[in-house]
Amino acid sequence: MSAYDYDLFVIGGGSGGVRAARVSAALGKKVGIAEEYRFGGTCVIRGCVPKKLFVYASQFPEHFEDAAGYGWSVPQASFDWQTLIANKDREITRLEGLYAKGVQGAGGETFQTRATLVDRHTIRLEAENRTVTADQILIATGGRPAAHPALPGYEHCITSNEAFHLERLPKAIAIEGGGYIAVEFANIFHGLGVETTLIYRGTEILSRFDMDLRRALHETMEKKGIRILCRTISEEVKRRPDGRLDVKVTGGDVLVVDQMMLAIGRQPNTEKLGLEAAGVELSPIGAVMVDQYSRTNVENIWAVGDVTNRVQLTPVAIHEAMCFIETAFKNNPTSPDHDTIATAVFSQPEIGTVGLSEDDASKRFEELEIYRASFRPMRHTLAGRDEKMLMKLVVDAASRKVLGAHILGPDAGEMAQLLGIPIKAGLTKDDFDRTMAVHPTAAEELVTMYKPTYRVKNGDRLD
Amino acid sequence: MSAYDYDLFVIGGGSGGVRAARVSAALGKKVGIAEEYRFGGTCVIRGCVPKKLFVYASQFPEHFEDAAGYGWSVPQASFDWQTLIANKDREITRLEGLYAKGVQGAGGETFQTRATLVDRHTIRLEAENRTVTADQILIATGGRPAAHPALPGYEHCITSNEAFHLERLPKAIAIEGGGYIAVEFANIFHGLGVETTLIYRGTEILSRFDMDLRRALHETMEKKGIRILCRTISEEVKRRPDGRLDVKVTGGDVLVVDQMMLAIGRQPNTEKLGLEAAGVELSPIGAVMVDQYSRTNVENIWAVGDVTNRVQLTPVAIHEAMCFIETAFKNNPTSPDHDTIATAVFSQPEIGTVGLSEDDASKRFEELEIYRASFRPMRHTLAGRDEKMLMKLVVDAASRKVLGAHILGPDAGEMAQLLGIPIKAGLTKDDFDRTMAVHPTAAEELVTMYKPTYRVKNGDRLD
Repeated sequence: MSAYDYDLFVIGGGSGGVRAARVSAALGKKVGIAEEYRFGGTCVIRGCVPKKLFVYASQFPEHFEDAAGYGWSVPQASFDWQTLIANKDREITRLEGLYAKGVQGAGGETFQTRATLVDRHTIRLEAENRTVTADQILIATGGRPAAHPALPGYEHCITSNEAFHLERLPKAIAIEGGGYIAVEFANIFHGLGVETTLIYRGTEILSRFDMDLRRALHETMEKKGIRILCRTISEEVKRRPDGRLDVKVTGGDVLVVDQMMLAIGRQPNTEKLGLEAAGVELSPIGAVMVDQYSRTNVENIWAVGDVTNRVQLTPVAIHEAMCFIETAFKNNPTSPDHDTIATAVFSQPEIGTVGLSEDDASKRFEELEIYRASFRPMRHTLAGRDEKMLMKLVVDAASRKVLGAHILGPDAGEMAQLLGIPIKAGLTKDDFDRTMAVHPTAAEELVTMYKPTYRVKNGDRLD
Repeated sequence: MSAYDYDLFVIGGGSGGVRAARVSAALGKKVGIAEEYRFGGTCVIRGCVPKKLFVYASQFPEHFEDAAGYGWSVPQASFDWQTLIANKDREITRLEGLYAKGVQGAGGETFQTRATLVDRHTIRLEAENRTVTADQILIATGGRPAAHPALPGYEHCITSNEAFHLERLPKAIAIEGGGYIAVEFANIFHGLGVETTLIYRGTEILSRFDMDLRRALHETMEKKGIRILCRTISEEVKRRPDGRLDVKVTGGDVLVVDQMMLAIGRQPNTEKLGLEAAGVELSPIGAVMVDQYSRTNVENIWAVGDVTNRVQLTPVAIHEAMCFIETAFKNNPTSPDHDTIATAVFSQPEIGTVGLSEDDASKRFEELEIYRASFRPMRHTLAGRDEKMLMKLVVDAASRKVLGAHILGPDAGEMAQLLGIPIKAGLTKDDFDRTMAVHPTAAEELVTMYKPTYRVKNGDRLD
């Protein structure tokens, strides 16, 4: 019999925590998991899932427009924000229930409370005003949108958290940030008819993605009518007498908007968790520091997911949780593999990417072959939609290995997912070439680019 | 100097013929190509391309319906068939021009005429009433919908050829056939509001595809409102006094429709081509017989594409053409590779498939692991659309090789294209498992099915 109430106690009911709790409970461990807000975490409650539902909602006006070229006359449609919010909330509540039930069904105990560490084996359940003990403890408290207290008037601003629950759809919005959250919300609000301005201090949106995609998405978003101000920051936000906001930006221009959304980064949720009491070390930005097995400096305390600030993605948190189970409970020490992770940006058009960008690859490999196609997807032809799809393969000339694949266009996320398999496995351009095309698809371009568009040698482009 | 007018003369301006003409002309060969109807062939003129444009057109009513759950109120839309046809025709004419110009731009000569063989080196250009000679000759005359003269009243029926140019959209249509053309058109007409009945003599639509997909698509089509009559044939078609058609089917039922479309197979275009004069052998069904290099029994006469009745797909014809060029003009004998070809059916929902079906695999491998997921795609949740997506991997238990992937649902064709790469390369289930998910996508299911749903041993399913 264990000396502790639980074999494992998990703090945080997001994707990583729930997976760890459910799987360890299914292994027969005595497991508790505490969540202070809603089970499901950022992904389900105020991240990936509701975001993608918003993306779908915001795409309909383009469907309506595109229909005309295909013979359809569609009278003016109208949009009701409250209906979207209510239907989205119903779906999120359903998923939240599945998450909690998943743990319970496997035999774990769920607690609706904030939980903090008293010492390295003791957890305080705040709402129940009692403590429990556990042999192993997993910190999976995730992160939240970074605040911006240096901005005068930041208290008038919202973040993505609030964007999911605005009482009414703004007529105009400014969004500060150039990362995927800022870009996705700019497209969502624009699609729903909101006058949208993106403000970003960097030189181009979506740093770390392939520059071709970044530029092409920027252009396409502007063509749709989204205003993008790069090398720009907001300097002051002021409430106007009419209730709207004046956002003063670099150079003195003032934007008049109904909402100002900050999407300038995310920070780990590690405050007032008792981590100091338990002796757990944090990084300078407040992330829980872990070793290659997701173990903190305290032997029985582990951490997975966004709170560790490694790669902040749902599947990564889940993968880290699965590796943690192997290491802690199956006597099979397993390090999470953070190499070659495919990702998507649900911008409009979408981005899907896996592996190295051209710039990154050119720093690591002497000679690259770049295969690049830019074309109008067939669905856009009759629609008369002047938007191009971009596809790009980055290939190491010496080994023929495909180092990276980068796609901008419809279904790019689905494509990146499946390109992840051959690229992770290290397949070569010859393997791509040997694959028969499926016609007519957009993805067939990826297996029919037989000649390099250009080469890059020692970092220089050769045409 | 050659003793012939042309180094290569191509008969037939479809995908295979045009590719062969363009690439050999670019190599500096003197090339002529004759097309009696329109450059582009079945694929561009009355196959893949206009078909997919029709598919897009027919999907809009579901977009309009789905919008409501996302907060959109869309007044009743109306459809004009003539607008679709006109816009489709304009796009097809544009593509047709590109095909002919591609050959001309490479230095080839195009002829708008029927061309027939006089002997193994002489071609008669019918419209110009003259003959030319060629060193090498390529037959790429494609195929056409099979006729059905045994059916009383078959003269009242249309085929896919005519479906692209109907003067008006029928109120009701019957389509005979169970292959992908019949299934795709059934979905197209139904989507455009036509009362649609599919008549198929077999036990289940889409023979040769994985049975799970066949059944699931059948069910989904019926749920949408398409009537499907399997183990049924039409026995007589009669014109009624009101101009409509009575289609009598097995068992005596009579369907009253405006059009009856036959999609019961396709046959090679080899009649009256002078193939006998040149001594070219045909198969019993009239296909040009070729060896592994696409060469006929006559040394200087070759054939690629549908006319050879190997695998009747555009990318295969193009691949055969490219291999022909290697063999005939680059001193590099190359056989087309017909193994593990990914394909799509642009039904609604779509099918994408590559590799072996469960049934085929179970005959060749002692033990299989079947990974199967059936779920509602996220875009259908708020829409309230009760349609499931199906994904299935067929894995050889001994080698862990993924033998086949089968998908039913949105973008299945795009997915099959990219799954073609790892499956053609012989990657294992472990390679799939090592790939990080992209969330939220549908395709992430394909890399997160960690446990077999069931096993098949010596052909028997073990649960």
